Parts: sequence; C-alpha cells; structure tokens
Amino acid sequence: DKVKVIPLVSESGVLKDYASIRKIRRISVAAPSLGGNELAYVTDCIRTNWISSQGKYVREFEAKFSEYHDGYKALAVSNGTVALHLALVALGIGEGDEVIVPDLTFAASINAILYTGATPVLADVDADSWNIDPEVIERLITPRTKAIMPVHLYGQPCDMQPIIEIAGAHNLLIVEDAAEALGSLYQSRPVGTFGDVATFSFFGNKTITTGEGGMVIFRDEAAYERAAVLRDHGMSKTKRYWHNEVGFNYRLTNLQAAIGVAQMERMDEFVDAKRRIAGLYNEELTKSAHFVLPLGEEVGSKNSYWLYTFLVKADSPFSRDELIAFLAANGIESRPVFYPLHEMPPYTQYGKASELSRSIAISKTGISLPSSPILEKEEVKFICERILYYAA
Amino acid sequence: DKVKVIPLVSESGVLKDYASIRKIRRISVAAPSLGGNELAYVTDCIRTNWISSQGKYVREFEAKFSEYHDGYKALAVSNGTVALHLALVALGIGEGDEVIVPDLTFAASINAILYTGATPVLADVDADSWNIDPEVIERLITPRTKAIMPVHLYGQPCDMQPIIEIAGAHNLLIVEDAAEALGSLYQSRPVGTFGDVATFSFFGNKTITTGEGGMVIFRDEAAYERAAVLRDHGMSKTKRYWHNEVGFNYRLTNLQAAIGVAQMERMDEFVDAKRRIAGLYNEELTKSAHFVLPLGEEVGSKNSYWLYTFLVKADSPFSRDELIAFLAANGIESRPVFYPLHEMPPYTQYGKASELSRSIAISKTGISLPSSPILEKEEVKFICERILYYAA
Ligand SMILES: Cc1ncc(COP(=O)(O)O)c(CN[C@H]2[C@H](O)[C@H](O)[C@@H](OP(=O)(O)OP(=O)(O)OC[C@H]3O[C@@H](n4cnc5c(=O)[nH]c(N)nc54)[C@H](O)[C@@H]3O)O[C@@H]2C)c1O
Ligand SMILES: Cc1ncc(COP(=O)(O)O)c(CN[C@H]2[C@H](O)[C@H](O)[C@@H](OP(=O)(O)OP(=O)(O)OC[C@H]3O[C@@H](n4cnc5c(=O)[nH]c(N)nc54)[C@H](O)[C@@H]3O)O[C@@H]2C)c1O
Repeated sequence: DKVKVIPLVSESGVLKDYASIRKIRRISVAAPSLGGNELAYVTDCIRTNWISSQGKYVREFEAKFSEYHDGYKALAVSNGTVALHLALVALGIGEGDEVIVPDLTFAASINAILYTGATPVLADVDADSWNIDPEVIERLITPRTKAIMPVHLYGQPCDMQPIIEIAGAHNLLIVEDAAEALGSLYQSRPVGTFGDVATFSFFGNKTITTGEGGMVIFRDEAAYERAAVLRDHGMSKTKRYWHNEVGFNYRLTNLQAAIGVAQMERMDEFVDAKRRIAGLYNEELTKSAHFVLPLGEEVGSKNSYWLYTFLVKADSPFSRDELIAFLAANGIESRPVFYPLHEMPPYTQYGKASELSRSIAISKTGISLPSSPILEKEEVKFICERILYYAA
Repeated sequence: DKVKVIPLVSESGVLKDYASIRKIRRISVAAPSLGGNELAYVTDCIRTNWISSQGKYVREFEAKFSEYHDGYKALAVSNGTVALHLALVALGIGEGDEVIVPDLTFAASINAILYTGATPVLADVDADSWNIDPEVIERLITPRTKAIMPVHLYGQPCDMQPIIEIAGAHNLLIVEDAAEALGSLYQSRPVGTFGDVATFSFFGNKTITTGEGGMVIFRDEAAYERAAVLRDHGMSKTKRYWHNEVGFNYRLTNLQAAIGVAQMERMDEFVDAKRRIAGLYNEELTKSAHFVLPLGEEVGSKNSYWLYTFLVKADSPFSRDELIAFLAANGIESRPVFYPLHEMPPYTQYGKASELSRSIAISKTGISLPSSPILEKEEVKFICERILYYAA
C-alpha cells in the first residue's frame, strides 16, 4: 500500500535521494514573503508611536488599493470575513433578503450572509472553473433575491459577464468575494471591479498579507461613506460618542496597514511567482492521466493562482485523501478543497444535494498544493516528483 | 466670554507664558508608551516570518494575561467589541434573552448584545461611582433575564459583591466589560475575575495597547473551548474546513500579540503612572468648588484611572462643553463622558429617561482629561492651571 510507504524521507526529515542537495524543511501550503519594506514601515509605526487604526499607513494602504482597483473607494478592515459582513450591511442587505452564493467556497462567504439575518441560497458551480455557474443563478432568483455573491475561488476569476447581465435584468446587487483572487483579471480588469462591492482577505496564507486583514472596495460613494461609519462603531464623524446606527469595530491597525503597503509594493512580483509555480505544476502533472488540471485562461483573464488546485479523477486508483496523506508523510502540506456548504450542519437548509452535484464532486477530489511565492523551483519539482511517483 | 479667549497659546502653537520652558505639543487624551520590548518582539515576528494569528506571541500573550487574572483561560481577539460578542455567544446568550447593561457606557457594550439577537435592558448608574447600580439591577430582572453586564467605567471597579449575590439568587450569568479597567482591583483581586466571563480592549487609547485588540477570559473551561472554535470561523480543530457552527474571524495577529506581550511586561508601570497622574489632578482640582472629583477607593479596591474623569457641577457658571472648548483652544484634548445610551436612535426602546436620571446627569457634566502614562508632570500641572484659571 503506497500510502504507508515513505520512501524518500528519513526519520530526521532528511531527504534520502535529495540529501546531497540539501535538507528539506516541511513545505507548507502557504507562507508569506516579508523581505521588502515590511520591517522598515512597522518600525516607523512604533518609533512614531502610531500603531492603532489611526495613522498614515491605513490611508496609504487604502489609497494604493483603490488605485489598483480602478478608483473604487477602499476601506481597510480587520479581516476578509468582516469585510464581507460590512459590505453586505453597507448595501442594506438583511432580514427578508436572499443572497445567492456558491455551494463550494470557504464558510466565511455564507457566514457573513447569516450574520446579517439574510437567507443564503446555495448555487452549484461550473464543472470546469469550479466557480458559481451563471445558468444556475438564473434559476434560483425569487422576488426576495437581493444580491449575488460570486467567489473567485483559488484565484480563478468568475465569468462575470453573464452575472452582470442577470443582475441587471433582475435589479440585483453584486458582492464579489475576492478573498482568494487579488491580482486576478477578467476582461483585462482586476476582479473586484465588476460588482457593487468587493472584498479581500490578507490572512497569512493570502497573496498579500497583513497577518490578518481585509479590504472592502465600493463602486458607490454613499455605500463607502456609510461603511466608514459602520466600521468605527457607527460613531458619528462630527459628534463624538454619538451613534446613529449599530456599528462594529472592524478597524485595521496602522501596524498591519504598514505591512500591507509594503506588500502592495511587491504584489505583482508575488502574482508572477505564483503563476510561475502554477506553470511548473501544470507542466509536470499533465504527465499523469489521473488528474484534472485547472482550467486555462480565456482572453483577457488572468488567474493569480492563489493556491494551485487540481482534481484527482474519480476513477483513479487512489483517492484525493490518500494523496494528501502521502504528501504529508513526505513533509509536504496540502489542502483539500472546501466541503460543500450544504453538507455541514449550520447550512443544510440552504441547498439540496441533488442540485449541487458538481460542487460535491469537486469537493471530494480537489487538492491544493504549496503555492507560496517563497517556494523554490526545486521544491516544486520535488513535490511534482513525489506526486508522479505516487500516481505511477 | 472666556471660551473664546485663547490666552496662552500663539498661532504657532507656542505657549506664550511657558515659551521659555518649551514648546508644547498638543496634549492628547491618550497615547501609548511603546518604548519597551515592542519593537524587538515585532521585529522577531517579521524576521521569523510569523505575523498571522498563528505564532508564539499569541499564546504567550494569552498565558501572561491568564496568569494575571487568577488563571481564567484567556483568548486574544481582534478588539474589545468582538471580545464582548464572542463572550456572549460562547455563553449561549441570544434571541429571547435579556441582558442588563448600564445606560452609561461606550456603545460597544450594548451593540454586542444586539449582535446576538438578545434584548438589552438599560440600568441606571450609581451617582458616585458612575457604574451600574446593583439595586436597580434587582428591579429589572424578569423571567427572560439571562445575564448582567457590569462595565468598570474609566477604571473604577464596579461594586461586584451585591451583583454576584443577585446573579446567584436569580441564576444569572455575569459578563464583565473590563475594556477600560485592566489593572483595577476589587476585594484585592483583578476585575474580570468576578464574572463568568470578562472582556478587555487594547485599542491605542487603552491601559495597554496592541493598536487594536481585545481579550476574553473565561471561568469555565467548556465556554473557553467553544469560544476558541468560534473565534476561528467555527472550524473544527480536527477536521479541516469542517464547520459545526456559524463562527467568526475574531483572531488577533502574532504581530499585535508581540506588542501585547511587551506591554504586559510594563502594565504595572502604566497603572502606577496613571494613578500618579490622577493623584496630581485630584490635588489640584479640589481647589475649585465647581467640580465633583472621582470617588475615593474602598479597602481592597484600586482604580486604574484609565481616563481621569470628573464632573462639572450643574450650578457652576460654565458648562462641561464650554470647558472642553476652552481646553481644546489651549491645545489640550479632552473627552465628554458617553451619551446615555437610551438617548441615541438605535437604543431608545431599551430604557426610559425617567428611570435613568443619574446616567443623564453624569453624561452631561462628565469630562475626561489626558491620562497617558507618557504625560509629564509639568503637562498635568499645565492642564490643571488652565482649568483652575478658567474656573476661577
Ligand atoms: C473565499 C473566502 N472568503 C472569505 C474568507 C475570509 O477571510 P479571512 O480569513 O476572514 O481573512 C476566506 C479566507 N479563507 C481562509 C481562511 O483565512 C482560513 O483561516 C484558512 O484556513 P486554513 O487552510 O486552515 O489556514 P491555515 O492552516 O491557518 O494557514 C494556511 C497556511 O498558511 C500558513 N501561514 C499562515 N500564517 C502564516 C504566517 O504568518 N507565517 C507563515 N510562515 N505561514 C503562515 C500556515 O502555516 C499554513 O501553511 O484558509 C482559508 C481558505 C476565503 O477563502
Ligand atoms: C466600555 C467599553 N466597552 C467596549 C469597548 C470596545 O473596545 P474596542 O474599541 O472595540 O477595542 C470600549 C472601547 N471604547 C473606546 C473605543 O475604542 C473608541 O474607539 C474610542 O473612541 P475615541 O475617544 O473617539 O478614541 P480616539 O479619539 O480614536 O482615541 C483616543 C485618543 O487616543 C489617541 N490614540 C489612539 N491610538 C493612538 C496611537 O496609536 N498612537 C497615539 N499616539 N495616540 C493614539 C488618539 O489620538 C486620541 O487622543 O474610545 C472609546 C472609549 C469601551 O470603552
């Protein structure tokens, strides 16, 4: 049984075959690169005594982010989950409203809808892009539908054109969950600039990181202004400690924003690195007949390959979980694709298995590989070698 | 009219009388002191490449906090508001429950109750301590009452003994909002160790800061364990991406926790400084008959004087707001006491003005003075001199 065989790694974690090359560390699925101006800017925060959510880096981070995103107004927040919540509340989504969301996404997407009191409606995904299927959206629309939440999964841009048309025809809002897709393009424009609002995550495993962090970008100035107040406890900007609304504390610190600014300076470099890594994976993994590789890019589209993800064919002699176990035993961290939301206790009522078969299939067979920009080419080759050995 | 007279400060912000001493900066109501190990620990995070909510400083910060708080289990979170929300959810408080909360507090206290779907019930405060009045609590209890939320305002410990007795008699939970009272003692023990759960804030103006940040401490191990899962998206600790509950992202970064650890090392020093400053204010301001100074300490109690706060008597020749304006014109930042919650649009339905008269009176007349541990004695004296000049 191949799963139990750990052929190349000794007890001490030294690669036997590769021992002459170097010792390997455990290869993690994601790790940030903090070798630019991060330390300098953080040091500046501490030396100038400005570390809270007040301070110049917050504004600079927002400005840089806005500039990259076609001038959409940007608000930095504590993370990608509260970004979604703030976006929904600022658009006025709440009890009585329905929001259409893909069944295959990280739970934060649906949780944010539930926080507002709105009802999520789970849509199946496209078999090839693994993103929400526009044809399915159309069928799920009811008089209560208020918004569509496309999620650009693993960096793959959603097919926004039909979604925009559906939203236009039915007068629906679009909330793009771009947590995993900073730097991805669609029709030659950054994802996040197709909806009324879009959100991003800067957790430690994301394309750029602030440790934890998030951003909301707004098409509409009024929604942006409202969100700015909601982010700061709903406190009036002119009358101290006066609250006209129930707000939140979703502020990002100057300290984290300082790192964000340094990371934005290197964003293109990170996306290039991830795309290079994805290219290497594609080149090697195509050699096995057991895998379905990520969908190629349409004209004008660009996949930022946040995490390089592929499927193990249902009829292959080993399962996705066996492959994960084999890789782990070889010191290589990987991730399964998310569970279909409708299978988990808090979400079962929002979708029917019979209508979510593609989500189910992809969830069972999908695996994400190490994709950090600090990965070395040699490490990627080692990972591929291990996978091909296992699949042979 | 004294308010319009700006006698001592020139256009350039140079104190005329004091010009020979030094230029003054604008004196802010709070500013952190980051001159200890903050930079060293943050640098360590970046150099070791661990800045997210994973990393050793988060655990160390929690351990130090727990140790200070009689071994209550501690969870670091993104800020003091989400700390309250997490505490309430972990205790199972939600729709159909009533929570008794003082009318005189920062809005985050009541907002957190509203997030859970529970109903806040506003209690009047004690005329002298400005904290929730235990006798009033008793009168507000109904069969739906689930918890009491005492808030230790401005560092003044609440009178916990009667609250504990009431809670015991009626089988109620106690949630201490200690956002403003780290380092305060009651019956010789730290506030936060009298309830089922307690929360703290580490915003830039707090006794210790992490920029933004918060902590929840639990008496009960099971509530702590539940909260740890809820803090991390409700994700199972053993089955990756599996969610048994709707959770949140309330994680604190390693970066912020690193600062928290350095701040904890100096917490006693900060509290000592704040108490010295309060002593100076008391000594000087007692010279005017127009003020009501903060309540003295009972045996075993210690006020950490987060912000030194006093009242302008209702019959004095000037109002609190006039004093604030005069101080601002002299380069001295101050803060009004919070508005009574029941006066603001989102909260009017949770209390009646006729039953909240002490809250109303204190709110109108209370003012908080600069209380940062980095204030110089000379600055405190200057502030007092200005106030006494104005009040003369
Ligand atoms: C579609 C969508 N919508 C919304 C959100 C919500 O965003 P947010 O988490 O609220 O910001 C998200 C974010 N989902 C993330 C969440 O942030 C979640 O917490 C995360 O789950 P995970 O796979 O369990 O993540 P992990 O194991 O904690 O970290 C992944 C790898 O990154 C490494 N890593 C994380 N932080 C650091 C760090 O500071 N340093 C180093 N060296 N490595 C780090 C870890 O060691 C792992 O190897 O991954 C999920 C996919 C999303 O995907
Ligand atoms: C009873 C109670 N319960 C819950 C909470 C919620 O906690 P949290 O805010 O979610 O962590 C709180 C926290 N309430 C705070 C909130 O954190 C709120 O945001 C804050 O309102 P504010 O008075 O408008 O605060 P500010 O003007 O933003 O900051 C106060 C001073 O501190 C200074 N300051 C803040 N951060 C920094 C910094 O990084 N550097 C320097 N030098 N000064 C700083 C500012 O310049 C001001 O002079 O003060 C309120 C009293 C609470 O009091």
